[in-house]
Amino acid sequence: MSASGYDVIGNEALLIAAQQMAEDIDSAFDVFIPVPDDPRRRLYEAMRYATIGGGKRIRPLLIRAAGNLFSLDPQQVIRIGLAVECIHVYSLIHDDLPAMDDDDLRRGKPTAHKAFDEATAILAGDCLHDLAFEILVDEATYPDPFIRCELVRALALASGPQGMAGGQMMDLVAETQEFDLPTITRLQQLKTGAIIGFCVEAAAIMGHVPHEGRTGLHGYARDIGLAFQIADDLMDVRGDAELAGKALGKDAAAGKQTFVSLLGVERAQQQAQLLVEQAKAHLHDYDERADLLRAIADYVIKRDR
Amino acid sequence: MSASGYDVIGNEALLIAAQQMAEDIDSAFDVFIPVPDDPRRRLYEAMRYATIGGGKRIRPLLIRAAGNLFSLDPQQVIRIGLAVECIHVYSLIHDDLPAMDDDDLRRGKPTAHKAFDEATAILAGDCLHDLAFEILVDEATYPDPFIRCELVRALALASGPQGMAGGQMMDLVAETQEFDLPTITRLQQLKTGAIIGFCVEAAAIMGHVPHEGRTGLHGYARDIGLAFQIADDLMDVRGDAELAGKALGKDAAAGKQTFVSLLGVERAQQQAQLLVEQAKAHLHDYDERADLLRAIADYVIKRDR
Repeated sequence: MSASGYDVIGNEALLIAAQQMAEDIDSAFDVFIPVPDDPRRRLYEAMRYATIGGGKRIRPLLIRAAGNLFSLDPQQVIRIGLAVECIHVYSLIHDDLPAMDDDDLRRGKPTAHKAFDEATAILAGDCLHDLAFEILVDEATYPDPFIRCELVRALALASGPQGMAGGQMMDLVAETQEFDLPTITRLQQLKTGAIIGFCVEAAAIMGHVPHEGRTGLHGYARDIGLAFQIADDLMDVRGDAELAGKALGKDAAAGKQTFVSLLGVERAQQQAQLLVEQAKAHLHDYDERADLLRAIADYVIKRDR
Repeated sequence: MSASGYDVIGNEALLIAAQQMAEDIDSAFDVFIPVPDDPRRRLYEAMRYATIGGGKRIRPLLIRAAGNLFSLDPQQVIRIGLAVECIHVYSLIHDDLPAMDDDDLRRGKPTAHKAFDEATAILAGDCLHDLAFEILVDEATYPDPFIRCELVRALALASGPQGMAGGQMMDLVAETQEFDLPTITRLQQLKTGAIIGFCVEAAAIMGHVPHEGRTGLHGYARDIGLAFQIADDLMDVRGDAELAGKALGKDAAAGKQTFVSLLGVERAQQQAQLLVEQAKAHLHDYDERADLLRAIADYVIKRDR
């Protein structure tokens, strides 16, 4: 069960929500990616291989948690979560390619280009990229087209050169250039932070929260995004590759600066803890409807995979 | 001047429109892809390298030509054209990769992964993919968000597995499987036809043409799309690689079936001519405002690159 791992912090509500979301996302992908009986079969099989039955689905869970603040429709939340997972998985497929990070293992199974081939993997990523926008723009996601346009705009910005892909470019440059702490922070804010930011932003857009009312949520997302990344760097140094389901120790081998190489293990741990407290402080205006957001903040640095 | 080549059919109006569009698209890309002074510089440079100063811009020209029927705003037409070129260029960058068609030359210059590197090329393609939707969804493209949602949906469908990327997958399969004429036709309808179809569809969406009123335009797009591809196949067999700006004869070398291998040169030529006449016949309801569409139909089989 892909949602396991959430039980490390002993929060029952988080565990149940995570398991439910993992099931919902898997079922939805099963419906949205039917395999056609024609020569495109292999492409759809690769899309299914990469999307179904994998991952912690922490991004969709974040949307649900932020959606709790505005009593969003659960079916609409799943559609936004699905769109975000499409972007996340497409980026994993492309990042794992030999020309990029050259990884053979992802979520405990061969990466898409290993299980299929590079050309199919590139195309499957490209197709998930389109599927994200196709799902987002459909009126089933939200009746008001103004809101749908806002969602499309926000996701395009979060995934493109001003967001995730820009961060991945910085990550490639980091192999040959020494980055300082502010640059590493910026790298991670783009590479992982932008999509995490989209998750809470999407909930705020659908909750009709005006821009000036989103500051707390943005602060929360920025802080857990960095905490998440520091936890990732710590795992890369001392984690369990079997639990993580991917190769570890790669950053050090590539000579890349990370939060841990720049701060040291102990200070990195302290920094991550501080960020989690700060993230929760951003939620002070919200009542117990923000409890799932609080539990996610605690979880991001306690997880073991 | 990238629009040269259009003069082969001696249609002055087409030549002027094509040159204007090529300039408009280049200027717009120059504005939309500013190079930042940070480690993402190389990514943006690759995006500019692949988009600016290249290609016939026949897709934006088609949008302008179809837009003439509905007196569309020229600035809005350019934005749709830009979005389509983003998708077209991203697909060229990814298709040219070693894992895909492995091409070294495109539009007479080194392909993106040759001029930069594979990782940067993959990311530049991904970023152009996002930029297409970012441009399309902006209210400067069209004030009514219903229309913008329709445009986003149509482009996502045309570029994904049910369109261009699905066709590219079939093209990969064609290297190892023998396709018959109906399957080759389907392949090309997806690979090149879907985006050409989007160009006239976008104009119809912005012109508020109801679905039942789009049949003629869809027929036109389908026919010139196939004619365009047959012309491409003919060029691959006997064209001038220097004029074409890319390697030719690759289909035969790869043992791929094409319209020409299945029909022979003479019947392929006849078929292309027939499709062009058929395309123009679909426009019988339109007056001289469809003349640019008619000129494009004549052009697609007369071009030498």
